[in-house]
Amino acid sequence: MHILITGASGMIGRKLVARLVEAGELNGRTIEKLTLTDVGAPQPPEKFAGKVDAFGADIGDPATAARALAGRPDTIFHLAAVVSGGAELDFEKGTRVNLDGSRALLEAVRKSGGDYRPRLVFTSSIAVFGAPFPDTIADDFHLTPLTSYGAQKAMVELLLADYTRRGFVDGVGIRLPTISVRPGRPNKAASGFFSSIIREPLAGEEAVLPVEDSVMHWHASPRAAVGFLIHAAGLAGGKLAPRVNLTMPGVACTIAEQIAALRRIAGDKVAARIRREPDPLIAGIVAGWPRRFDPRRALALGFKAETSFDAIIRVHIEDELGGKVAI
Amino acid sequence: MHILITGASGMIGRKLVARLVEAGELNGRTIEKLTLTDVGAPQPPEKFAGKVDAFGADIGDPATAARALAGRPDTIFHLAAVVSGGAELDFEKGTRVNLDGSRALLEAVRKSGGDYRPRLVFTSSIAVFGAPFPDTIADDFHLTPLTSYGAQKAMVELLLADYTRRGFVDGVGIRLPTISVRPGRPNKAASGFFSSIIREPLAGEEAVLPVEDSVMHWHASPRAAVGFLIHAAGLAGGKLAPRVNLTMPGVACTIAEQIAALRRIAGDKVAARIRREPDPLIAGIVAGWPRRFDPRRALALGFKAETSFDAIIRVHIEDELGGKVAI
Repeated sequence: MHILITGASGMIGRKLVARLVEAGELNGRTIEKLTLTDVGAPQPPEKFAGKVDAFGADIGDPATAARALAGRPDTIFHLAAVVSGGAELDFEKGTRVNLDGSRALLEAVRKSGGDYRPRLVFTSSIAVFGAPFPDTIADDFHLTPLTSYGAQKAMVELLLADYTRRGFVDGVGIRLPTISVRPGRPNKAASGFFSSIIREPLAGEEAVLPVEDSVMHWHASPRAAVGFLIHAAGLAGGKLAPRVNLTMPGVACTIAEQIAALRRIAGDKVAARIRREPDPLIAGIVAGWPRRFDPRRALALGFKAETSFDAIIRVHIEDELGGKVAI
Repeated sequence: MHILITGASGMIGRKLVARLVEAGELNGRTIEKLTLTDVGAPQPPEKFAGKVDAFGADIGDPATAARALAGRPDTIFHLAAVVSGGAELDFEKGTRVNLDGSRALLEAVRKSGGDYRPRLVFTSSIAVFGAPFPDTIADDFHLTPLTSYGAQKAMVELLLADYTRRGFVDGVGIRLPTISVRPGRPNKAASGFFSSIIREPLAGEEAVLPVEDSVMHWHASPRAAVGFLIHAAGLAGGKLAPRVNLTMPGVACTIAEQIAALRRIAGDKVAARIRREPDPLIAGIVAGWPRRFDPRRALALGFKAETSFDAIIRVHIEDELGGKVAI
């Protein structure tokens, strides 16, 4: 089994590599080779017995796809992307990476010819949806993104479905929830506070909450996201076709419920480290985001997320904090 | 008022040019110039007092968009496309014209810079939808096309919405029903019989019906389609944003209802010219097509279609047969 991962240095990419290396296999087949690419050359994983080809490259350059596919990987995890805020600030860069880079990868697979038809798992996002929304979003709700990132992801979903329908590739698109608790330092993403109000208090630091406690959103842990990717890689294609793009399960909860979970797990003192500082700009952006889904197809296909925000916090404490909290 | 029409030599394009020339104005502004393009140079319209720039060009070549936009048209009707069957047979050509050609046009508008922000009316299609369907398809139903043509149209809808949201263009996408009764000779399109079972009998010829009488589909006349385009050109953009792509109204009727309408209008002898010759291949293709929509947004915005198949047949007799039927 030869696996290609684009965006291998990103937060999800690194966790995916670690999980695959630990397992040593994917869907019952031994992993013999990993091809890893990102803007800079990804760090080759330690403790991996197989071959590694790790190289830095611009996914927006069609030559990158050709190089990445040279060894005909059996499974491709296409994670590389310019994030939402970045694609909004730099339209041309977002288009080049998110749309043209993905298309170049699909084209390179198509042009490989013969009977080469790898499983390609594409990380889409709930950013393909845009307000106004019903209270709960069904699997057959339309995609009307309100960011260029969301539009680019939605276009690649369409390409992936058509390339799969035509037999050029064996695609699965998974729409990730907002990933909480995102490890690392706070960033400037408008969604950053969903993670920082948990992460910073658990680390003994203050966090700023810019929106009302009543704001509801759709979450899954980084561990669950990696689980989605691995499950998607093993799904029988026939179970999906022709609708190969799936909204992933998650936890719908309000900010108040997030804080209550934090208090249950880490106590009042930790929860008191959240400072309310309303920001109408961020509140306005968040108002256009989906709150809750009814992801029946993904659940029926066996995708599993946490079922409470408590569980999401526990995953963070286990995976990022070595089980310890700064009380 | 300067108007650009791509695909100006097509069936809808010619009728749109004729209607605009006859009116002499669009939304209360005198038409001073028409820029018309298609694969071959379109025939310049007779009896038009303004300027005409009619040229043949490949819309898949980015230079075409630059030339078409050189005079900064106020309104653009982007009709050029490789049709459904063509895009399915020749994937690269369909992608090049339907996706890349449309994107080149949008990019040329974006790069024009300054305050240039023309109204761009894009003809999408109900081919953006794919089975399975509910009995009636609502405006918020997802797009899961089952043809490359439908996927390409859906991707351009996403581009159009994002370019409009960002202020690069003032777009409106209209999803046309199947156009019935399509004038001219029978073609090999799988949908051809919806028109030919009316057109041929009215012209004294036999027509072949390859599907069951119970098959339901969504129709509008060529005259209604031109009406949609003109209405879309005059809509205030603020009424649409951010969901600028609209399913057009139409008539949902079965083959049996089509034939009953033909019998009411032209008599038993004409209706008897339909010969049933079941074709499982065509029946299978048609089974994946939408039957009926509930196009509330378009109706609320003032788009008007026929309300019966009788009316659609009468339009054909008036517009194509000079009011005469071969009894």
